[in-house]
This record gives sequence, structure tokens and C-alpha cells, in this order.
Amino acid sequence: MTGKDVTAAFVIIGNEILSGRTKDANLNFLATFLNQRGIQLREVRVVPDITETIIDTVNLLKAKFDYVFTSGGIGPTHDDITSASIAEAFSTELYRHPDAEELLHTQYSPEDRTPARMKMADVPRGATLIDNPVSKAPGFRIENVFVLAGVPEIFQAMLDELAPSLVGGTPVESVTVSTNLGEGVVADGLEVIQNNFPDMDVGSYPYFRSGVFGTSLVMRSQNTADLELAAEQVRALIRSLGQEPIEGEVK
Amino acid sequence: MTGKDVTAAFVIIGNEILSGRTKDANLNFLATFLNQRGIQLREVRVVPDITETIIDTVNLLKAKFDYVFTSGGIGPTHDDITSASIAEAFSTELYRHPDAEELLHTQYSPEDRTPARMKMADVPRGATLIDNPVSKAPGFRIENVFVLAGVPEIFQAMLDELAPSLVGGTPVESVTVSTNLGEGVVADGLEVIQNNFPDMDVGSYPYFRSGVFGTSLVMRSQNTADLELAAEQVRALIRSLGQEPIEGEVK
Repeated sequence: MTGKDVTAAFVIIGNEILSGRTKDANLNFLATFLNQRGIQLREVRVVPDITETIIDTVNLLKAKFDYVFTSGGIGPTHDDITSASIAEAFSTELYRHPDAEELLHTQYSPEDRTPARMKMADVPRGATLIDNPVSKAPGFRIENVFVLAGVPEIFQAMLDELAPSLVGGTPVESVTVSTNLGEGVVADGLEVIQNNFPDMDVGSYPYFRSGVFGTSLVMRSQNTADLELAAEQVRALIRSLGQEPIEGEVK
Repeated sequence: MTGKDVTAAFVIIGNEILSGRTKDANLNFLATFLNQRGIQLREVRVVPDITETIIDTVNLLKAKFDYVFTSGGIGPTHDDITSASIAEAFSTELYRHPDAEELLHTQYSPEDRTPARMKMADVPRGATLIDNPVSKAPGFRIENVFVLAGVPEIFQAMLDELAPSLVGGTPVESVTVSTNLGEGVVADGLEVIQNNFPDMDVGSYPYFRSGVFGTSLVMRSQNTADLELAAEQVRALIRSLGQEPIEGEVK
């Protein structure tokens, strides 16, 4: 059985991530969100606030993956260049979207509607808005590219808004079996199991919890029958090495 | 005055980051570490455990930036394919490094020296080892590429080990001035300041702390004289909008 793959990439736009000023908090959230919906995140790039770099990166990734998500650079200041860069990537122009303008009018009283703030109503022609329930200024979708805010609360809220428009593939399920054995002890047997299931993603992750070293063995596949067979082989491997397998992750 | 730019890229290798299982904890640490040493992190990519992808990514980035750092995939299991991929990227072969072998002998008693564990002594020809004070299995450097473990404690310890071998450029200094004004209020004046200092990175980052919205204005430059001039203009801008500037970040 081969499942239907639906793939995605994520572009994190922002000098502040690259300089170390700001810790990204969106990657793990998006990865989990997509995984739950049968969409496989295949690549992530963090790029600076440089128009050409954003254009080249988005053009490359939107051709390569089913969906592209971006975070950051859609606020009111001069360093918010994402919307203009995306318009250029799609060879179109920015225009003031009437619905976006109206949303900002509900957020700002007339004297607070500065040109900088109203710029947040400008989106590429052909884009549809993504609601921002936190602070109104919307994100947008154009073809297979979703342009979202960088502030984690807004990023997450926008994902909830756009979720119904995503079409997922066959979900990748996972089974985790842990053991207090070291990676180096299970490695040879684990490779045999990987070879038994060549299409499966069999991962090995060492941990150190409550003074004990151990290894989590994670099997990921679209084929749940295979997954259970492989997990049973992993449990048998651990027993053959003199330990009782631990189901799931060790907290 | 133009400073000397020394640049870097970071490749995070691991399916577990892309699936959401594991939260990356190395990006922000590396960004800060490099920034402190006058090295500008310019791009980050998260890629899956696929040999071709690792080879292509490393080859592209090592030609484009002064330094490339990788994390992940140098353990004992079948999914640890980074060392072999890097060897292939440099058109060379893996060999068992005698010093690495000796290090592993200090870590593992003879009965624990499984073939899988001893594989961690294999590095590309031409590589020099990077000590791992946590669990012995070393990282390595080949030309301008530094190959490090993914486990954050080991990643960080390896950076400390290799730090003396890095040659930094002119450090990028930063000054942060904060204000309880919104981004949209300072945006127009801030753009004028950016235009006064076109080579400077002038960033605007909204925050919400203790029930108060505000904005941190961050200026980054290799030219400390310009930096102080720009900061003074930012303080004047905030005063002209009826607020007293707050020095630094708001905690």
C-alpha cells in the first residue's frame, strides 16, 4: 500500500531569528499541526528580510511542494516586506483589499489609521484573506502559499482559520517504543527491522530522564498494518536484549 | 566605514524536527554564539534524513557562506547518515579515524564496542575531530563545514570546543530602545531613520508584557558611531510622539 503524499515547506522570514534576538516558536507548532492533517513538512528555511531572497525561496518551494507557509514580515513597519515580496514572486502587484481595510477600520479609530497601519490591508492581487482573530490585520493565501504573521499567538490563530481549506493526504501514523538500552546496543537489530520495512521511517532518539539513559524508537508510516508489525519486531528486539519494552515516550 | 562580513549557514538534519516530534533547541543557541563572535548567520535549513538532500544542501551552502554548521545524524544507528553524506559532498570516503576510535575505547568497555557504536569513529578523509566532552563520540570539521551532534548539550559543548578555530569579522553591535507606543505609530518616523542609515538593520518588534502593548526598536550595525546616532534619532522620535523612551528590551 502506498499512501497519498501531500507535502509542505515553511519559510521563516526574519533577521531577528538569525541574529538570535528572537527564538522561533512556530516551527514545532506548524510541524505538529500539519502532521495531524496528513501533510508532510519536508523542508524549513529561515531567511533574512531581503526581498530577492524571499522571492527566490518562495518561488522555488512553491513549485516543489504542495503547500508553502511563511511567517513574519506582514506588520506595519518598513522592515515588513513579505507581502510585497510575495506579490513579486507571483508577478502581480499589491492592492488595498476592501475587506482587509474594513477589518482594520474595526480595529483602529479614524485618528489611529496611520498610513503605516493601513498598509497591512495591502495584499497581492488574487489573494484571499486569512482572518486574524487576535489583532485583525489579516494574513492571506495566494495559490498554494499561505502568508502568516510571525507573532506566535497570531500565527496559531491564523492556522486554525485556514485549516478547513487544507487538503491532507494519507496521515503518517507513528508508534513509539522506548527502552533503557543505549542506541548502540539496539542499532544492529534496528537496522534489520528498517530493512524489513524499507518505506518506513524508523528513527532512534537517545534520551536521559531521571538519571537513566535510554532510547526511543519511533516508527512512522502511512501503512498502519506494517507499523504494528514493525513495532512488534522492535519489542521482540528489546526483549532479546534482556529488557522489557516501554510503550511510548519516556517522560 | 564598512566592516568585514563573515557569514554562516546552519543545516538542521532530522526527520524528527520536521514531524514535530522534537523541538529544535540549537538554532537560537548557534545564532547567539555566532553573533557574539562577529559571524553573521544568514540562512538556516531544516532537511530530512535523505542523503541526496543533505549533499545538495551542504554543497550549495558551503560555496555561498564562510562557514556551515550541521546538527544531527552522527550517532550509531542506521538513520545516522550525516557523516557519509558529508564525505560524499566532499567527494571523499569515510575512514576510521584512529583518535576517534581511541576516544570511543575510553567510553565503551570491550564488550560494549558494537560495530554500530564504533561507526561513530568514521569520518571523511581530511576531517579534523571536534571533541565531545559529554559522551566522547566526536564531531568533525572538513574545510569550512562543522558537523555537530543534535543533542543540545553535546551540540553546545562542541561549539565551545571549536570556538577558537573560528575567525570572526567585524561584530554587529545592537542597540534596543523600547516604547509603549504601537508599531503603527512609530512606523513612519522609523522609516525616515532607516533611510538616514541605509546600511543599518533597523527592526521593529511588537510585544505584550504585563498587560501593556509596546514596540522594541532594534538597530544593528558594524558601525558603532552610526548606531549611537540612529538610537538618538529613535529616542527623539519617541519623545516627539509624547513618550519617554525605554532603554533596552522590556522584560
